[in-house]
Amino acid sequence: MTTFLENYAEGRWVKSAGGLSPIHSALTGDVVAETGSDGLDFGGMAEHARRKGGKALRAMTFHERAVMLKALGQAIMERKEELYDLSWDTGATRTDSWIDIEGGAGTLFSYASKGRRELPNDRILLDGDTEVLARDGTFIGQHVYTSMQGFALHINAFNFPVWGMLEKLGPTLLAGVPAIVKPASATAYVAEAAFRIMIESGVLPEGALQFIAGMPGDLFDHLTGQDSVAFTGSANTAAKLQQVPVIAREAVRFTAERDSLNASILAPDAAPGTPEFDLFVKEVAREMTVKAGQKCTAIRRALVPAGLIDAVQEALSARLAKTVVGDPRTEGVTMGALVSRAQRDDVRAKIAELSAVAPVVYGDPNAADDGKGAFFAPVLMRTDDPWKADAIHEVEAFGPVATLMPYADLADAAALANHGKGSLAVSVFTHDGATARELLLESGAFHGRMAFLNRESAKSSTGHGSPLPVLVHGGPGRAGGGEEMGGIRGVKHYMQRTALQGDPGLLSKALGEYLPGAPMQEGPVHPFRLRLGELEPGYTLKTGSRTITLEDIEHFAAFTGDNFYAHMDEEAAKASPIFGGRVAHGYLILSFAAGLFVDAPPGPVLANYGLEHLRFVKPMKPGDSMKVSLTVKSKSQRSPEMGEARWAVRVTNQDDELCATYDLLTMNAV
Amino acid sequence: MTTFLENYAEGRWVKSAGGLSPIHSALTGDVVAETGSDGLDFGGMAEHARRKGGKALRAMTFHERAVMLKALGQAIMERKEELYDLSWDTGATRTDSWIDIEGGAGTLFSYASKGRRELPNDRILLDGDTEVLARDGTFIGQHVYTSMQGFALHINAFNFPVWGMLEKLGPTLLAGVPAIVKPASATAYVAEAAFRIMIESGVLPEGALQFIAGMPGDLFDHLTGQDSVAFTGSANTAAKLQQVPVIAREAVRFTAERDSLNASILAPDAAPGTPEFDLFVKEVAREMTVKAGQKCTAIRRALVPAGLIDAVQEALSARLAKTVVGDPRTEGVTMGALVSRAQRDDVRAKIAELSAVAPVVYGDPNAADDGKGAFFAPVLMRTDDPWKADAIHEVEAFGPVATLMPYADLADAAALANHGKGSLAVSVFTHDGATARELLLESGAFHGRMAFLNRESAKSSTGHGSPLPVLVHGGPGRAGGGEEMGGIRGVKHYMQRTALQGDPGLLSKALGEYLPGAPMQEGPVHPFRLRLGELEPGYTLKTGSRTITLEDIEHFAAFTGDNFYAHMDEEAAKASPIFGGRVAHGYLILSFAAGLFVDAPPGPVLANYGLEHLRFVKPMKPGDSMKVSLTVKSKSQRSPEMGEARWAVRVTNQDDELCATYDLLTMNAV
Repeated sequence: MTTFLENYAEGRWVKSAGGLSPIHSALTGDVVAETGSDGLDFGGMAEHARRKGGKALRAMTFHERAVMLKALGQAIMERKEELYDLSWDTGATRTDSWIDIEGGAGTLFSYASKGRRELPNDRILLDGDTEVLARDGTFIGQHVYTSMQGFALHINAFNFPVWGMLEKLGPTLLAGVPAIVKPASATAYVAEAAFRIMIESGVLPEGALQFIAGMPGDLFDHLTGQDSVAFTGSANTAAKLQQVPVIAREAVRFTAERDSLNASILAPDAAPGTPEFDLFVKEVAREMTVKAGQKCTAIRRALVPAGLIDAVQEALSARLAKTVVGDPRTEGVTMGALVSRAQRDDVRAKIAELSAVAPVVYGDPNAADDGKGAFFAPVLMRTDDPWKADAIHEVEAFGPVATLMPYADLADAAALANHGKGSLAVSVFTHDGATARELLLESGAFHGRMAFLNRESAKSSTGHGSPLPVLVHGGPGRAGGGEEMGGIRGVKHYMQRTALQGDPGLLSKALGEYLPGAPMQEGPVHPFRLRLGELEPGYTLKTGSRTITLEDIEHFAAFTGDNFYAHMDEEAAKASPIFGGRVAHGYLILSFAAGLFVDAPPGPVLANYGLEHLRFVKPMKPGDSMKVSLTVKSKSQRSPEMGEARWAVRVTNQDDELCATYDLLTMNAV
Repeated sequence: MTTFLENYAEGRWVKSAGGLSPIHSALTGDVVAETGSDGLDFGGMAEHARRKGGKALRAMTFHERAVMLKALGQAIMERKEELYDLSWDTGATRTDSWIDIEGGAGTLFSYASKGRRELPNDRILLDGDTEVLARDGTFIGQHVYTSMQGFALHINAFNFPVWGMLEKLGPTLLAGVPAIVKPASATAYVAEAAFRIMIESGVLPEGALQFIAGMPGDLFDHLTGQDSVAFTGSANTAAKLQQVPVIAREAVRFTAERDSLNASILAPDAAPGTPEFDLFVKEVAREMTVKAGQKCTAIRRALVPAGLIDAVQEALSARLAKTVVGDPRTEGVTMGALVSRAQRDDVRAKIAELSAVAPVVYGDPNAADDGKGAFFAPVLMRTDDPWKADAIHEVEAFGPVATLMPYADLADAAALANHGKGSLAVSVFTHDGATARELLLESGAFHGRMAFLNRESAKSSTGHGSPLPVLVHGGPGRAGGGEEMGGIRGVKHYMQRTALQGDPGLLSKALGEYLPGAPMQEGPVHPFRLRLGELEPGYTLKTGSRTITLEDIEHFAAFTGDNFYAHMDEEAAKASPIFGGRVAHGYLILSFAAGLFVDAPPGPVLANYGLEHLRFVKPMKPGDSMKVSLTVKSKSQRSPEMGEARWAVRVTNQDDELCATYDLLTMNAV
């Protein structure tokens, strides 16, 4: 059955007005879908995204967007079997599709969770500390992020049609930015089905997402400096797109995640007989065969100590021999097909090129051919002189293919890994901390991710090749120089960082957060009597004062057991360069401060759950008197019932000198 | 006297082997210098930077590099008069040169200070929190930054030959990355002199800096994915450089800071008679005339409420009339010359273009011409229909030139500001917080910096046009999409972020920092007896236990005055969804914890100066017993005598459940 893929443009599903391109089954070679995007008004789509989608998304808070992401993930999970069914024809096994479909939904859930836990229930994200720009404190700086006002164009790869779409959409939508998605043709029918599920979920505001089933026409001509392009795919296409003049002219944000020659290093300590040796063999074989090796993070170069290369080759060959290639619907099959016969031909051609310097030592590029599907069995190559075999560091066969090579010492291993000119991921099998440190310092700058794997994490590790939503995905140089995900880091890629300057009072009002130096407002009501919704940043309680006596200090020491000499030994304390005499315990000051500001009866303040940035600025001595100001700094609703309030606390002495400062965190009723 | 500028390549001063280009005085038109870079081995320079400079810089810690930056700044300051003398011929006044020379040295001092205060005394920078990747805690993620292993190519603008060089070098060198500097020709003699001072200071490792006095030859051909290009100058040149194929092919980091049509907005609340109105007029005039308006951040578009445009024009014209243009060495002169007669001709041509839609209402483009120098008096233009005058939002006359225009309401003001398609800086003169918030939300994404100026900061503000080392400098779209400085943010642009994965023990050893879940090592000595140098991350004290009694809680409440119901009122505490009965004060737990872990006699621990990330995870009830583990987390030497130690503290109950966790900060003797 042939599916005719549709575009989703300006809020409607639209068929291509013209010629359609066929998409073939990886298993049978039959046409399973046809796709095209002729006649779309690409400029209209761009404007629709900006005027409708962007405006609606920007009006939502981070938490509201997070709730939306969770609902999208749930919609995918509820209809996941439809996607599994469609995915067979891409050549994927059920395990491969699990990574794609449930991994994709999981990425949305991760962003939903991070968005609610790590972002404020607001539309502006503060970045870093306030910078005091004038001695008298009347002029300060504060960096913030706000949503970019354009759209994101996502151009995705064929290998993970669902995950590849969702790992870009999670951070984009959480940032408040609409997207136009262009999937890779070979698996566009799976992407279209997943996209349709999201639209049908009804949780997206109009214009938030659009879909181009075919080619993107003249869409690039409509890009501006508020738009961005995120591309995943080949280095050639990436470079071509990056050089479209509009990118430089309008300074369009462009990020690419390209092929890379990822390495895995068996460290010198991981000799045969160690758990690390076995883990390495297992992981290289796994990375070669999962998704038939069509993973941008797959291990292409296996680096082993020169003396161990024969042992590794033997163990790896034995492991690969267990691979069962075939129709993934068949019981017992462990590896499906490449995505297309064209892809298979390309892999064969690359192996021909590579084997000139690194002969095939296991497998046969023609073994699995059934004349119809794109089946291809694993192939291992080997070179014994990797510094004279440039192709193995430059040419990627995007299938179940890797090259084994020796290194002389750790520095040589790092240099070989770096000789790939930048990768998405490198893994190191070692149980030695010094080895890990040396490789990080020598090689870290060439890789977006470094996985150190060994016996300690053998059961819990996610392995060499799995990008995770909480970690950055991308790499320098050959890998494209881009960065995606990484939790909230990925959200910031779709926002603009702006340095704000001004007086603290005005900036506090603009940001809805009390900044240091802003005026404090005292009121008739103790702030512990106010519900979360009633707390205004800047609202302040100023307490009466309490004198700290030597008796208090001695009593506190006896009670708590904290007899530190600075509190209890006048002579030793006098000799200290910091104290110059006995001083009160810091914890005594904290405790007395609470005694001064706490309002005891039950009320909206449910608990003090923590403290941040406590600094004891000036010691307090016996006879000093302390007073406290407690100022509402910010608040963030977390549930319908409660939310967090953050309070700026300042403890001063009888001369109004600052002695201690901290942020107090309370959970409050809404 | 003509100076023959030299290149500094591979550790030697080298004259151009071929043709020289003349540089003319802005004041007299005479040739003051000749420059060229023929015959340089640009590929050799690239390799020299990587192999010598990069290697040496990467071997230094952040603190060592910070000390080096301070020494460079001091060298500039000691010989600043040489630079002031040379700068007259650029047309700059002493005030203009102060921004350039002392502002440049100040930027190095700022980076030196931030480097020592905000970065570790190490070569690896941790980014963000540890991510737990496995439920059992045996597999974690940690992002880090390491130095890129290539070089930075800095291509600078003519207007601030010293500051423009140093604002790029500060973050680059602090990141451990060598640089090759190519100054703009028109003022290259000032840049060369400043560069020479740095080399002669002797504080730089070999290969850290090189200098191309003329054109950069085939240097671009030698760029790799570990190198970066930072360009400041015109949009045309930026776009041309960004499209050199090597940039996309190798994914070279490219950042540009380009012309932009910066706006300043007089808000509706800032009517004549308010301090903001006067400040606006003063600031627009100042921004037009400082450095003869040759500032990438200068105000080009002055946006005022429609009803106030005549009043503003009158006040602004009166203010501009006080400008005295002439030889800056002459007493009473307030504005010098443009950098060259070519620049002056360009400004005249741009005014001709702009005045077709926005007639000149003050000044005369030919007024100050003396037939020799590049003198040019301020020119103000005005349009009453800014939405029909596209040129004023697109064409920059890089001199003492601005255009006045009306807006209808705040939304219109934001839309007009955004119509410039991205700028380095926008300023808003307002005393109203709601106005600031609306403009931030509507316009923030279009600007790298937003300055809100008013009566509160009238005396302390650094104004519209001053980039500061602690704030990001750069802007989206027309401004180039780049970002420089911003304190440590700018350092990260020259480092690679890598996601590390592994078991906590191995990663702790690799990073020299204890990460959550890593094994703890108990030893025979109380850690308070160990000097900073002897503390090993992971070294742990496990204390005995102490039971918390109801008596303790009541005693603590009476002593401190903290009678919060959760501690003192059994009935109310039972009703709480969080406590379900009376619980110990958090501060009581903290205080008892110190009683358990503190070792009292004088020793290497000088003071507990603070606390971070305190969370009360589980309440402790009367009868619960608590014990503490105190683990060395990290340390950073701050002076020859002392440094900071950070300790991970975990308070657990009799069932080994975590009740409180925090980082304790102490100052320790080395």
